[in-house]
Order: sequence, then C-alpha cells, then structure tokens
Amino acid sequence: MFLQNAWYPVAWGDEIADGFLARKVLGRELALFRDGQGQPRAIANRCPHRFAPLSLGKRIGDAIQCPYHGLHFGADGRCVHNPHGDGSVPDVATPAFPARERHKLIWVWMGEAALATDDIGDGEYAYLDAIDLSVLPRGYMPLACDYRLVIDNLMDPAHTAILHGTTLASEALTRAVPRVWRDGDGIRVESWAPAGKPSFLFGEFLGNHDDPVDHWAASRWQMAGLLSVEAGVTAVGGRREDGLTTRVAHLVTPETETTAHYFWAAARNFRADDAELSDQIQAGITAIFDGEDRWMLEAIERSMDGEDFWALRPAILPFDRGAVMVRRALESAIKAETAPKPVTAVAG
Amino acid sequence: MFLQNAWYPVAWGDEIADGFLARKVLGRELALFRDGQGQPRAIANRCPHRFAPLSLGKRIGDAIQCPYHGLHFGADGRCVHNPHGDGSVPDVATPAFPARERHKLIWVWMGEAALATDDIGDGEYAYLDAIDLSVLPRGYMPLACDYRLVIDNLMDPAHTAILHGTTLASEALTRAVPRVWRDGDGIRVESWAPAGKPSFLFGEFLGNHDDPVDHWAASRWQMAGLLSVEAGVTAVGGRREDGLTTRVAHLVTPETETTAHYFWAAARNFRADDAELSDQIQAGITAIFDGEDRWMLEAIERSMDGEDFWALRPAILPFDRGAVMVRRALESAIKAETAPKPVTAVAG
Amino acid sequence: MFLQNAWYPVAWGDEIADGFLARKVLGRELALFRDGQGQPRAIANRCPHRFAPLSLGKRIGDAIQCPYHGLHFGADGRCVHNPHGDGSVPDVATPAFPARERHKLIWVWMGEAALATDDIGDGEYAYLDAIDLSVLPRGYMPLACDYRLVIDNLMDPAHTAILHGTTLASEALTRAVPRVWRDGDGIRVESWAPAGKPSFLFGEFLGNHDDPVDHWAASRWQMAGLLSVEAGVTAVGGRREDGLTTRVAHLVTPETETTAHYFWAAARNFRADDAELSDQIQAGITAIFDGEDRWMLEAIERSMDGEDFWALRPAILPFDRGAVMVRRALESAIKAETAPKPVTAVAG
Ligand code: FES
Ligand code: FES
Ligand code: FES
Repeated sequence: MFLQNAWYPVAWGDEIADGFLARKVLGRELALFRDGQGQPRAIANRCPHRFAPLSLGKRIGDAIQCPYHGLHFGADGRCVHNPHGDGSVPDVATPAFPARERHKLIWVWMGEAALATDDIGDGEYAYLDAIDLSVLPRGYMPLACDYRLVIDNLMDPAHTAILHGTTLASEALTRAVPRVWRDGDGIRVESWAPAGKPSFLFGEFLGNHDDPVDHWAASRWQMAGLLSVEAGVTAVGGRREDGLTTRVAHLVTPETETTAHYFWAAARNFRADDAELSDQIQAGITAIFDGEDRWMLEAIERSMDGEDFWALRPAILPFDRGAVMVRRALESAIKAETAPKPVTAVAG
Repeated sequence: MFLQNAWYPVAWGDEIADGFLARKVLGRELALFRDGQGQPRAIANRCPHRFAPLSLGKRIGDAIQCPYHGLHFGADGRCVHNPHGDGSVPDVATPAFPARERHKLIWVWMGEAALATDDIGDGEYAYLDAIDLSVLPRGYMPLACDYRLVIDNLMDPAHTAILHGTTLASEALTRAVPRVWRDGDGIRVESWAPAGKPSFLFGEFLGNHDDPVDHWAASRWQMAGLLSVEAGVTAVGGRREDGLTTRVAHLVTPETETTAHYFWAAARNFRADDAELSDQIQAGITAIFDGEDRWMLEAIERSMDGEDFWALRPAILPFDRGAVMVRRALESAIKAETAPKPVTAVAG
Repeated sequence: MFLQNAWYPVAWGDEIADGFLARKVLGRELALFRDGQGQPRAIANRCPHRFAPLSLGKRIGDAIQCPYHGLHFGADGRCVHNPHGDGSVPDVATPAFPARERHKLIWVWMGEAALATDDIGDGEYAYLDAIDLSVLPRGYMPLACDYRLVIDNLMDPAHTAILHGTTLASEALTRAVPRVWRDGDGIRVESWAPAGKPSFLFGEFLGNHDDPVDHWAASRWQMAGLLSVEAGVTAVGGRREDGLTTRVAHLVTPETETTAHYFWAAARNFRADDAELSDQIQAGITAIFDGEDRWMLEAIERSMDGEDFWALRPAILPFDRGAVMVRRALESAIKAETAPKPVTAVAG
C-alpha cells in the first residue's frame, strides 16, 4: 500500500532528453517523455487498445504512435488519430498523471490529479537549480528493497558508526543522542557532537584527520520518500556556517512493494568548482551507497522475506525515534487517504 | 482454462524421428514418441509409480522403460513389465492421449478420447502433404505469451501497417475494412484492396515495387489455435488465381496460461522449387516473427501482468471484429465443455 | 510441515572452522558458528533490531557484532552491548537453537529446546568419530527437491538396478524381496541375495567381476532424515564380516518444502588406509549421486510440480514398503507434535 497523493521523483531531467523512458512507479508502469514544449509528461505505459507498451512507440510530431496498430495519443493520453479504415477516432485514453520538472528532476503525482500541490519539497531542493548537473556528484540506483528501509537508514544516524565504520563514522556523533521533532508534515533529526576526531571523509576534506572538530548532522524527511541530509564539521566552538558542509539529497520512490528507485545528489559549500574533488566524491559516494547501504538493505529485504515490519517486532532503540515517527506518519497518511469519505449529514 | 476437446499441434513430425520429446501442452507435460509401427503417441510424462519423467527413459522394443525403477509401459501407457521381486505387474498406467500425424505435424487431443474427431482442420492444411518439408520454409518457436494474443494478432489485418511497416505493410490494405463471418465453428476475415502499391515483400517477389496491384488477405481461424492466412497480389482488376499467393499456416498451442508453442509453414504458388527463394523466405519470416511479432506479443503479456483481458477493458475498433469473435467463440466452447451435464429427466 | 523436535545435521564440523555459515533449515535461516570454547552455536540469522543478517557481522571476542548498527549478541542470542547513546542494553534476543557437534557433523534441534535429547542417531554414526575426515570420502550437496524424495530413494533397493544400472546394480539383489521392520522409532530394510555376479563397484573392489558372491544391503532410517546404508559381498555361503562392507551415511535435512541439504560419508572395512582408493570412491560416489540420484530426484520434484505426494496416487509396489513406512512414521510424528496438548482433567 503506497501513499498516492504525493510527488515522487521518477527520473533525472536528462534521462528523458529524447524518446521514452519506461519506469514502474507505485507498481504501475509509466511512459515518461517530453511534449512538444519540452514539458515532462507521464502516462500509463499501456495502450488502451491491445495493451502494447507505448514506450516502444514513436513520436510523430506531438503525438505518440502506438507500436502495434499505430493509434496516436496526445501527451494527455487521449487518442487523437486512427490510421485504419475510415479513420474515425475512438473515444479512449491511457491514464495521464501530473508531471513536473523541478530541481533537475522529473516528479510525478500518482494520486488524484485535482489534489496535486504546486509545492514540491518546500524549497528544500531548490539549491540544485543553480548547480550545473555535469559537475554535481549525483546518481540513480535501482534497489531490491522496500523504500521504507532506505528511509529508516537515513533517519537513523547510528548505523554510520558500524556500516560506514571506515568512511563516514564519527565516534563523537555515535555517542550523541539525536533530537527529533515534527516539522509540518515532515520530520527532522539533528545531532551535535562537540570536540571529536573528524570522520575519515571530513578528515580528507580538511586535510587533517587528528585535530578535534565539532561534528553535526541534520536530516529532514518529507512525504513520501524525500530526505535531505546535511552534515558538517566546524572549529571546536565555531559556527556551522564557518565550517565545511555537505548537503545530500536522498530521494526514494517505490517501484513495487519490494523494490525502489533511488536518486541522490551531493552538494557542498567548499571547493564547489573543484572538478577533481567532484569526481572523487562521485566515486566515493557511489562506492559507499552501492557496497555498504545497498548491500545491507537488500540483505535485510531478503531476511524479512515478505513479512510485515511490525509483525516481526523490531526492537526500538532511542536512535530509532526519527525512523519510527516517519513510519507512523506514512501509515496515518495512507490510512487517511484510503478511508471511506464521510457522508455529509443531511438535515432531516 | 483451456479448450480440452480439440486437436492441438504439438510437434513437427520430424521432431520425434527417434527418442522422446517432452513438451507441455495445456499445462500438462507429455512424452511424445513413435510406437513400433511409427505411429505417434502421447502419454503423460510422469511415471505412475514415483513420478519420474518417462521421457528420460529408454525404448525397450515397443515398451518404454522408466528411468528410475524400470517398470515398462506400453505405448498406451499401461504397465506391462516389472523387473523386481517376483515380477508381478501392477495394474497401473500413465494417461495416454489420442495422437495423430497429419500434414507433417503431430496432433494431440487432450480432452475426452471418445470425442476425438477424425477430422483435423477440415482439410485446410492438406496442401502441406504434398510438399517436401526440407524445402518448405517453416519453424517452431516457443512464445512467452498467452496463445490468444497470437490469434488476436493474426485475425487483425491492421497491425501489419505499423508493426510490419517496412516488410509486410500495404497502404491500400490498411485503408480496407475487412469482411468477417462465421464459417461453421471457424471464423473468416477477408480484405480486398484494389489498385495500391505492393507491400515490400510482394514488391520483391514481383521485382517491381511501384506499379499498382490489387492486394488481398484472407484468414481462416479454427478451434482452438489454427490459423491459415492467405495473402496475394494480382494485376489490377485481375483474378486472384492469376497472381502471386502465399499461404501461411500459423498454428498455436497453449503450453501454460502465459506461454505457447507456435508452428508455422509458408507455402506459395510461384517459384515453389526455387530453393534460394525458400531460404530467403525462411530467414525473412523468422526475422519478422521473432523480431516483430514475438517481440510485441511478449511485451504485451508483460504489460498485462496477469490481469484478465476483458477486465482491462480493451478498446474495440472495427478491425478487431474477427479477433473478438474468436475470443467469444472460444469462451463459449470452453463454457459448454465445462458445464455440468444435464440430467436426463426420468418419467415419473 | 516439518518435524521440529529432531536433530538435523546442518554442516560438516569443518564448514564452521571460523566465521559464520548462513544456512536455511526447516525454512528458517540460521547463523552457525563456534563460541569462544569452540562449541557450535545456532541462532536465527536475523538481528532483532532491524533484521540485518548476523552472519554478515563480526566476532568481537565472544560476541557477535551486528553489521548494521553494531549491537553485540552473545552466543545465546541475547543482546549484551549497545555502542550508541548512553549504551543502555536493550532486553532483546535473536532465537537460539540447541546445537551439538557429533560424529564430525554439526546438528541442530529446531523444536522445543527442553525436549532436545542427548542421543543423536543412537550411536549409528559413532564410527565416523575414529576416521580422519581428510581421508574419508564424504560430501555436501544442496538438492532442489523435497527431502522425502531422498529418503524414498534410499529405502528402496529397487532403483539401483535401473538408475545405477552400470555402477551399483546387482542382478541378484534386484530379484530379492527386502525384509522391512520397525526398530524403535526407526525402520530397517534388509536384502540378502545369494550367489550372484557382483555389482560393478564391488567387482572393482574384488578385482573380479565374474565369480559369484553373496550380496547384501541393509538400510536403517531414523527420524527425521538419517539413513545408514550398509552393503557388502562375501564368499558364497560365507559370513558378512568376512567379506567387503561399505557403510554409507546419507543425512538429509529440509531447507524448504522443495529443497534439502544432503550430507554423505562412505566408510569401508577394507583398504581403509588406501588414499588412492579413497580418492576414487570420492570421485565415483560424487558422480553417481550428482549425475544419477540428484538428476532423477530433481526431475521428479519438477514433475510433481508442487502437488501432494499422496494426492498424485503413487503406485505401491512390494519394494516400496520401507519408504511408505517412513512416510507414514513421519506423518504420525508431525501430527503428534502439532496436535493441541490435552487439557488435564480437573477433579470437580
Ligand atoms: S495496441 Fe495500441 S493501437 Fe493497438
Ligand atoms: S518411478 Fe517409474 S518405475 Fe518407479
Ligand atoms: S539491525 Fe542489528 S543492530 Fe540494528
């Protein structure tokens, strides 16, 4: 069961430079493409005639030609041309979904179109607008696990100490108890760890692995799978903004109940134009996400073997508070969305 | 749910020249072979003792020796020898199914043996009898799709214009509205398109891609998966029999609900002895069926994702009439076959 | 449905020399390892926190460190250390199962720990204690079939004549009718075939394929998947103990309903120290089990296609008596184990 009424990122903008991209979202296969004005469009990837995948078809002007019998469909999914017989156009359509291009990503709203909000991510990812994608470390990764395992992972600062023991771990952060609070329909987690050795990664950035620094990390989750994670080091007793900060977008979209699409981008407030450093970060983060997080999350998916998360009675530790709050928030939102609509009482 | 009481082609005759062929038909695995007289035989490929596949066994004279404990079975599936202990032969058998060799193919009747008809295909495929298989373009292809998608495809002349746009398409035929009519328990579709450019393929045969011809196509479907498709060109205003005609047998047999066996053979009324042309047709048709039809039908099967055809509410266009009539005829026949038998009223 | 209250072999002792072995037993994944005293241990391979496979973790002294957030667990599965926040240790545990090392194998009791017997196999496999594993032909093989198909196979002397026609078959044994009897909660099958040609294998051992010998074979099955098979030849009219005897342990443990773990070891009372002969036996038996038995049993599993054994109405022949008795004994034991416990009557 997925939250339908939410914006989900489904592709980097440059993944649909031309042609069609077939991608399954919330269990439903979409054909993603750009219309004649270059606007992103999302339609169900199934011809309403005999169910051919439209993504195998051709663009003919502004229309999509089905690869099987050649009906043409507009970017809104409606049939606009029939090349056969007397050419009368059948009154059929493939479902279309609201789609937007924002912050270099393509977003889709799978729920009720009338409820689609104008806001996507509350400006959290607007910083991506100004960055040239060709120099920004970023990626896409398909994951063989429930998208909520990714959120659990990112809302929990504790796993870093072990899973990323030789890369991202900071001893001081491990001892810190994170603060967690609701923030509108989102949730924030923040940790502050004064005067400790820098993590290996920040040690590299600083060129100094030994002198103590203040370490901090802050995550913001928003419905349904958006996570913005900032982390940094600053001089002991110093201000955050005077130190080094990385700002990583982790955006996860359910493909099916047991698979997900994962998009990430890693910005920073230092040596932003250093292409060599960007390349190193690109390679380093890919290695960590692929070899540590993906490795672990897919192992957990297999270990859970289709059983329900709560039915397995997970232990709840203090550092799980953020992750548990997100799961509960998602469950409430899904319940609200699927509840039968109240009948308005009629005066008698 | 399959129609049981019908003849299904299951192999080319030369596929069982010697030894056993294991092939699943209507969800049931058969062992196909020839008896001592060379007659084709079909038995359930499962020893009634401990369920070993009999197709892994050996021929011992006229009997089949089970590969596990060596019980012998006659060509009728009945146990005829027990090599163990005192050798007493158990009263067991593996189910046997009526099998015939007709028109170079092996046919099996999976339903009630007593209902097996003598007729197979109403003589439609008798023309294959006279052709030496070694010079006839023909083939076998396993398909990962519901067999009815193949029938839909072949009863619908419209897909040719698009799916086979560069090979079989004829502009004039695309504009023609086909005539469709019931013919006994079969269904016929026929299109006649006067004075148009030949399709690429007939252009090649004619050695002339430009001069207009009359184009025609006629399909005959018979229960459950037999399709005979004739197509041709003739001089504008001329008679069919004076032009070039191809006659292609498309025979499709369900393996499971989502997979099928597909047999084809392509005869012609011109340059029938030209071996080089036969080779070209063999290669060309294989490329078209494999790279265009199979590609599309398997994509549709994946797109339908196990959902029921009607539940997906397919759009019905005028050129679908033949395909829809076939689906309805199959549904009625299956319903009649599985209906509880009426109890004969007894006078009181 | 598996028998829970029984000892199942799950690994050769040297498979867990160091580190963890993840192995699924009765549908449940275990992490197998040795504690600080070298004793074998078996715990559910799923961290009670967020379900990471513990087998991917590290040994830290006597504890297991979870690979995800680093909780430590004792060899009894109980959490003993929390590296995060204030370090308070949560009261959680992963299930632990009784484990023993006996006769060079690791055994696990998946049922109620309090019912675990001290006895494993009634001394049947004690002879393995004295043999150096490095010179004993033995192996492990994962099988894609129900473990009961392996038992059927080993309790039935008849298949040898056909499936192993060129290797283990003895014509005289094929004609013999085996004696079968219950022996405690086990079952024995024994065949005696006087004055026949030796099987190919014993012919090789004897260096004589022609002179008649007395041939015998005796199997002992014990709950749930333990089979000890002795076979031998002796001079016509001679005593067993004066001839050549092989003693093969066949131990099979369900992994899932359709897959199994298979352990075997082949001892002998002749040329026991001949390393070259041991190598030949190792290679020969591996070839026979892999190429003949596994080949057949996995084909049968596919042929049965998930259907119930009895629902398929297997023919029962005289030589099946042992196998049928084992199936019935297993069914009774499972039924007894899963029956609701009787409520003790309370005097009124
Ligand atoms: S399937 Fe798309 S036009 Fe027929
Ligand atoms: S399985 Fe065929 S004879 Fe036993
Ligand atoms: S999953 Fe094991 S400590 Fe968190």
